[in-house]
Amino acid sequence: MSRVAYLGPRGTFSQAALLEMSHRGLLPAGCDEVDTASTPAALKAVRDGAADYACVPIENSIEGSVSPTLDSLAFENPLQIYGELVLDVAFSIVTRPGTAADDVITIAAFPVAAAQVQRWVSVHLPAATFVPAISNAAAAVDVRDGRADAGVSTALAAELYGLDTLAGGVVDEANARTRFVLAGPPGPPPPRTGADRTSVVLRLDNVPGALVSAMTEFSIRRIDLTRIESRPTRTELGTYVFFLDCVGHLEDDSVAEALKALHARCTDVRYLGSWPTETPVGALPPVTEEATQWLQRLRRGDR
Amino acid sequence: MSRVAYLGPRGTFSQAALLEMSHRGLLPAGCDEVDTASTPAALKAVRDGAADYACVPIENSIEGSVSPTLDSLAFENPLQIYGELVLDVAFSIVTRPGTAADDVITIAAFPVAAAQVQRWVSVHLPAATFVPAISNAAAAVDVRDGRADAGVSTALAAELYGLDTLAGGVVDEANARTRFVLAGPPGPPPPRTGADRTSVVLRLDNVPGALVSAMTEFSIRRIDLTRIESRPTRTELGTYVFFLDCVGHLEDDSVAEALKALHARCTDVRYLGSWPTETPVGALPPVTEEATQWLQRLRRGDR
Amino acid sequence: MSRVAYLGPRGTFSQAALLEMSHRGLLPAGCDEVDTASTPAALKAVRDGAADYACVPIENSIEGSVSPTLDSLAFENPLQIYGELVLDVAFSIVTRPGTAADDVITIAAFPVAAAQVQRWVSVHLPAATFVPAISNAAAAVDVRDGRADAGVSTALAAELYGLDTLAGGVVDEANARTRFVLAGPPGPPPPRTGADRTSVVLRLDNVPGALVSAMTEFSIRRIDLTRIESRPTRTELGTYVFFLDCVGHLEDDSVAEALKALHARCTDVRYLGSWPTETPVGALPPVTEEATQWLQRLRRGDR
Amino acid sequence: MSRVAYLGPRGTFSQAALLEMSHRGLLPAGCDEVDTASTPAALKAVRDGAADYACVPIENSIEGSVSPTLDSLAFENPLQIYGELVLDVAFSIVTRPGTAADDVITIAAFPVAAAQVQRWVSVHLPAATFVPAISNAAAAVDVRDGRADAGVSTALAAELYGLDTLAGGVVDEANARTRFVLAGPPGPPPPRTGADRTSVVLRLDNVPGALVSAMTEFSIRRIDLTRIESRPTRTELGTYVFFLDCVGHLEDDSVAEALKALHARCTDVRYLGSWPTETPVGALPPVTEEATQWLQRLRRGDR
Repeated sequence: MSRVAYLGPRGTFSQAALLEMSHRGLLPAGCDEVDTASTPAALKAVRDGAADYACVPIENSIEGSVSPTLDSLAFENPLQIYGELVLDVAFSIVTRPGTAADDVITIAAFPVAAAQVQRWVSVHLPAATFVPAISNAAAAVDVRDGRADAGVSTALAAELYGLDTLAGGVVDEANARTRFVLAGPPGPPPPRTGADRTSVVLRLDNVPGALVSAMTEFSIRRIDLTRIESRPTRTELGTYVFFLDCVGHLEDDSVAEALKALHARCTDVRYLGSWPTETPVGALPPVTEEATQWLQRLRRGDR
Repeated sequence: MSRVAYLGPRGTFSQAALLEMSHRGLLPAGCDEVDTASTPAALKAVRDGAADYACVPIENSIEGSVSPTLDSLAFENPLQIYGELVLDVAFSIVTRPGTAADDVITIAAFPVAAAQVQRWVSVHLPAATFVPAISNAAAAVDVRDGRADAGVSTALAAELYGLDTLAGGVVDEANARTRFVLAGPPGPPPPRTGADRTSVVLRLDNVPGALVSAMTEFSIRRIDLTRIESRPTRTELGTYVFFLDCVGHLEDDSVAEALKALHARCTDVRYLGSWPTETPVGALPPVTEEATQWLQRLRRGDR
Repeated sequence: MSRVAYLGPRGTFSQAALLEMSHRGLLPAGCDEVDTASTPAALKAVRDGAADYACVPIENSIEGSVSPTLDSLAFENPLQIYGELVLDVAFSIVTRPGTAADDVITIAAFPVAAAQVQRWVSVHLPAATFVPAISNAAAAVDVRDGRADAGVSTALAAELYGLDTLAGGVVDEANARTRFVLAGPPGPPPPRTGADRTSVVLRLDNVPGALVSAMTEFSIRRIDLTRIESRPTRTELGTYVFFLDCVGHLEDDSVAEALKALHARCTDVRYLGSWPTETPVGALPPVTEEATQWLQRLRRGDR
Repeated sequence: MSRVAYLGPRGTFSQAALLEMSHRGLLPAGCDEVDTASTPAALKAVRDGAADYACVPIENSIEGSVSPTLDSLAFENPLQIYGELVLDVAFSIVTRPGTAADDVITIAAFPVAAAQVQRWVSVHLPAATFVPAISNAAAAVDVRDGRADAGVSTALAAELYGLDTLAGGVVDEANARTRFVLAGPPGPPPPRTGADRTSVVLRLDNVPGALVSAMTEFSIRRIDLTRIESRPTRTELGTYVFFLDCVGHLEDDSVAEALKALHARCTDVRYLGSWPTETPVGALPPVTEEATQWLQRLRRGDR
């Protein structure tokens, strides 16, 4: 039985993502859920053997990359990504049973969540004041335990903690979504599906043009980069590692060639995996079978 | 008298940066400090005419870019950066006068700050539990008002709120620093000093290689890119704007040419300014006087 | 009165080109024609002050570049190109008056010309054998002086030497054309017409990628290269200079920028001129006025 | 017994090159020599099955590329290059036995050769006038048959035609050399030696930047281009094919990848062969074994 770590406590969006991955068959049914104190802790559980996988958020359409996830993937012992799930961001405004909207004076919220429902709250709960919670799920616990009248939490938490839902699907910005990934120990990537994403972390020589040269290894092979993100190396301001996502799979010849070229060119290339994507964007890498056969004919002298 | 907005309440690192900018002559002496509820609010105060400048954090060596600052600069009405200051991250652990370390059971901290002093606290205040505060300065106020025994705050806040300092210069990671910038309404950039930084935000056509082509406009002119950052456009996952910083000034011919080329090539180029940098890294743009004179001789037919 | 040097003796295609240039107003009417022993000698006459201009062939659609012209332009004292003319290649088969086709046993021809009319001769003069002449015009002289029965020459030579024309417009390959240029001492280029060509000779550092980098200075600015030609430096096998022609004029901002960049990048850039082209191919350089104004607004702080 | 075609008649530099190739073991000893009327005819003999190989000049340090060789390789049925030989250019001034320098009034010379010994002749045979010969070997025949007093020819021709040598090793420019290649029907290239050259002919889409993109396929893989040559397509002025030579062999991974990429990118790629070079210049292609193994480990999940 697989053990899958996630940012707890129970009721977080991470747990909701984990359950949905299981529901869709990305994870074996009936896996053990292992809650951890933070996203890096979930990834550390895999490294330490306390879990087989971790389900962690990596990117949000409003906030951008989830830095603790990226930093753990880049700077700690290698892990690999095997799958992904994209969830709409949609908060539930939860209360203890019997609480009416007019009764809400304090509303517990993780600060990031508070920022994302601020407009909704000012319209629908104009009398309410935010009080900080340490996570979206903790906001529900704060409500259950009477430390706040309402909470900005998740549908899953409402269910788990026996709370009422004053409003569901709440979020100020349209189209807010979060991408979660399933990370495990390094291993063979899942088979190529034709709608795949490959991700690497590059450490570059500190010379002008090093990043352009690295990116050219993709563009010259007509591989579509779908994301580039810099993260400080945490040693000094102005030095970075780069996260690059591209369309395609390690089994695509062009992607394999680009990775080999980067391995030769960069100080370090960390392969984060190739996996089926939920949100295919960009052009597929070119098909190279014909060119490969042409080359083989040249080598055989058969034209 | 200049009015300068910052993330309040009084005692934040932002205010400390503002005071230091004033001390170093980056701001006129005796400016009015305007505290605001958030970093975007500080920038909005400039847009609304309620302040002449805003002093806001833009990048942190541990956390990376400060997303609300970048998003405000990229997506709201144009502002321009006129100067910068780099501050070491160093928290003060503050208490009400008379509190001993052994008395500390609860310690108020903004969650980001809590993460950065966690190791120190576990060693020096092993019995303490974190309680969330809404900002570093608010942590000091929470202590003053008796809502926590200690707080993770700033030296400035300790002074302003009459608190004792249990320990100063506290931070788990070595070399943690934050870059603050001074933003104002668009205007002529400050004169070229020879140690300048220029910053732009690019919106690119959604075609493979568009980013590589844009970056090549810098590399082909031997302009050193010191930073590249992507931010989601907030409309859907997988679409980004790019923040690029380079060595040099709008008055450097190469930089001017690169910007003109980007203006022609990109969907949109937003110029964020050219200003003297505190942390010069990378090679200066090439000197082009000789080539310019050569061209003028060609045009005159004088060889 | 302008003195214009050309490859003699009288009756060559070079003289025909010169007359046509004069006819079209590319040269002042009534110029003095100075015949020389070779194409390099015509260019040398300009360098020595014995002529104001030289009209010389530079490129042929069948043979390619005319090496002696290129080498003289690249390696001797600088000259500059001011105009061009494209002539169809069309030989006249000339005889002494009274000679019938059946009487032709020997046919004088410059070897290059012989190669270009071989098929025609084998069909129409099957009994004839080629005898070498030292130029197209000399072939006519050889016929006049009785050293051959017929000659492969020019319409102009037939007229000048009082010969009959057995057939005109003779050439085996369709569309054969030669480009002639008018070269003079360096001076201001003729005004931009919107259908111009600019030409340079590059000497590059002997490093991998130097040529690609140089060509990228054009492509990144969307300047269309219409021709690239390598010529050995005549010092050892495997070292070259490069002739590059592009669409546009020194007064086009993009072209001026590209040239400045090459001047900074290359061991040497020799500017061969900007002049109106007879055969406009390729896309015009981008218009940059709008970007220039945008940049000026940035510098003034006026947005 | 191999039959090897060359530009005749007997005594040409081409035959001298053929004999030297045989001497060095590039050709089987005792091959049959097949003389032809021209360099294209020698190549055609291979295409027609009348010869197994052709030994033809391809490049000269003074004249540059040998256009008829390039055009035949580019535009007629495919052939492949299997080896090369570089010969110093050195003419022999030949006379009938008993002729003294003072007796020389006429000197037979192929026009190209005349140009290369002009200075020498003006100093040593000031009274002599050039008369055109149809080849270097024909110049010797002209002397033997009494049509000229002396000839500009080869050491081999002097020997074959029983002539005296007034002077040997004559040439005006120092370091003049010619590269000859051995061309045969397409077949497996000779084994990689570590000092190899690979050659291709490219036909490109007529779009700006197409050549830069093609060349970038080499530079991005750190493959050293040692030669680039354009040749008109013979259909109209301003359209070209490109001959590119690079360091390395079809069995070098980087070269194979670059060729595959060109095959996918270009209208047509004609492979002219990989063969041991006599004049190694430029850096070897990077060794890729380590990167290949790294990639295989990624695919196996073995890190």
